[in-house]
Amino acid sequence: MTTRNFNALVDARWKAGFTLCINLDPEPGRIPPAFQDRPAIKGMIDFLKDVIWETADLVAAYKPNAAFYEACGKDGHEMLRQVIETIHEAAPNVPVIFDAKRADIGNTNEKYVTATFDELGCDAITVHPYLGPEAMAPFIDRKQNGIIVLVRTSNPGAGRYQDLLVDGRPVYQHIAHDVATTWNVNGNCGMVVGATYPDEMKQVRAIAPDSLILVPGIGAQGGDVDATVRNGMRPDGSGLLLCAGRSILYAQEEGSSPRIAAQVLHDQITAARQQLQR
Amino acid sequence: MTTRNFNALVDARWKAGFTLCINLDPEPGRIPPAFQDRPAIKGMIDFLKDVIWETADLVAAYKPNAAFYEACGKDGHEMLRQVIETIHEAAPNVPVIFDAKRADIGNTNEKYVTATFDELGCDAITVHPYLGPEAMAPFIDRKQNGIIVLVRTSNPGAGRYQDLLVDGRPVYQHIAHDVATTWNVNGNCGMVVGATYPDEMKQVRAIAPDSLILVPGIGAQGGDVDATVRNGMRPDGSGLLLCAGRSILYAQEEGSSPRIAAQVLHDQITAARQQLQR
Repeated sequence: MTTRNFNALVDARWKAGFTLCINLDPEPGRIPPAFQDRPAIKGMIDFLKDVIWETADLVAAYKPNAAFYEACGKDGHEMLRQVIETIHEAAPNVPVIFDAKRADIGNTNEKYVTATFDELGCDAITVHPYLGPEAMAPFIDRKQNGIIVLVRTSNPGAGRYQDLLVDGRPVYQHIAHDVATTWNVNGNCGMVVGATYPDEMKQVRAIAPDSLILVPGIGAQGGDVDATVRNGMRPDGSGLLLCAGRSILYAQEEGSSPRIAAQVLHDQITAARQQLQR
Repeated sequence: MTTRNFNALVDARWKAGFTLCINLDPEPGRIPPAFQDRPAIKGMIDFLKDVIWETADLVAAYKPNAAFYEACGKDGHEMLRQVIETIHEAAPNVPVIFDAKRADIGNTNEKYVTATFDELGCDAITVHPYLGPEAMAPFIDRKQNGIIVLVRTSNPGAGRYQDLLVDGRPVYQHIAHDVATTWNVNGNCGMVVGATYPDEMKQVRAIAPDSLILVPGIGAQGGDVDATVRNGMRPDGSGLLLCAGRSILYAQEEGSSPRIAAQVLHDQITAARQQLQR
């Protein structure tokens, strides 16, 4: 893993025309019937492996969320390990973002760094900003890994603290500016901005013209692809990772499949990008 | 676990005169020599079990931090499970706080709730405030469990965002007020305020006179017991959980033992409380 570089991997995928990031979040009750003939944990692992092999040529990144694995108790870690291993096998040039939203004091963050990058072999992690950049040094120091800071989250009540006005500007904009400057001494920091907030996306892109922005909220949460691309993409078509999970993984519930749903979303993003670059 | 109630457990420990919370954070390189004659993971588990049995009658709570277990990779979950099981066995009336600093959108927080309370059997969890109370509903809805929100963290750079002024008051005070009111509809929310910030402790206690405050930063981080008790304790001697970890677990490095170090700190807290109540 030591020779992998998150920025380089993402840049190459962007240059190849890919912007989609698939969330790999297993929900035991929603595994397709074809995977229900075996023990539940094995069914989920086999299903996720299938999704990865079916979509590996369509994505810019994969993003497993820690909570869905932890909820599986003692089997969760092994499930996550196998999912990450499968990504490295099926898509060796596609980075893995651990959507864990971690952050603690420095001494403790060193342990999260070990867990995420050394033990699990992920390429990037999402983190909370609340403790400030000083505490986050162990993450920031991992130059080859991506550190993606929550700036504007996709949930309906995100504004409660993120919109508090400080010197006439909302907190999320102060943090966006900081992440692009103070945090970014090693050039490895990105931000999270939800697709459900296109106006805030525009503000963040203006503040941080060069930053990687990870965008949850496409698909099941109702975020708009066109508005996201218009307000968040850089002129050269790079800069964004658009995340969808449930709408792809459980596409069979709508009579589709993960491959088809991923292809449709990829095409939609590509069309929006071409519209932008026209 | 369904009949356990975090508030009731803590109240009973306070009434019995206990305020100390021991952090159970295993560091492979610091296990005492007596536990080094076996595989590393077993050595750590046996050591932590010993610390629990030696200190069970001196504490108000135990607090394992997720990061230290996750850094142990595939064995981490089993280690954590055994530590929690040992607490329930050695100290059935002492609550377990999972210091995991989690927080995601609502749908995902449901999974963290399952992982923490149902799978692991913890009584409380620490969480980040950044997504706001709307996203945190799955935690807040667990009336019998404690939800302890980061308000003022113990790290040197905590002020970077926590001290930003909104309407003339720092962000951490706005959040403290919210946690004691909006978040606390079920009476199960507490806050984290670092012992390294006695002035901020005083402010938070004024804003939230009834709230449980979890206080990291005693011991290795240098927080002052007397100032913490003076500024944070309620008049009846309740309201605080003072956390120490490294200074107790690795007391042997200083020629002491976990039991003796815990007893010394308990006595120091008791003296400070008596001073206050005089």
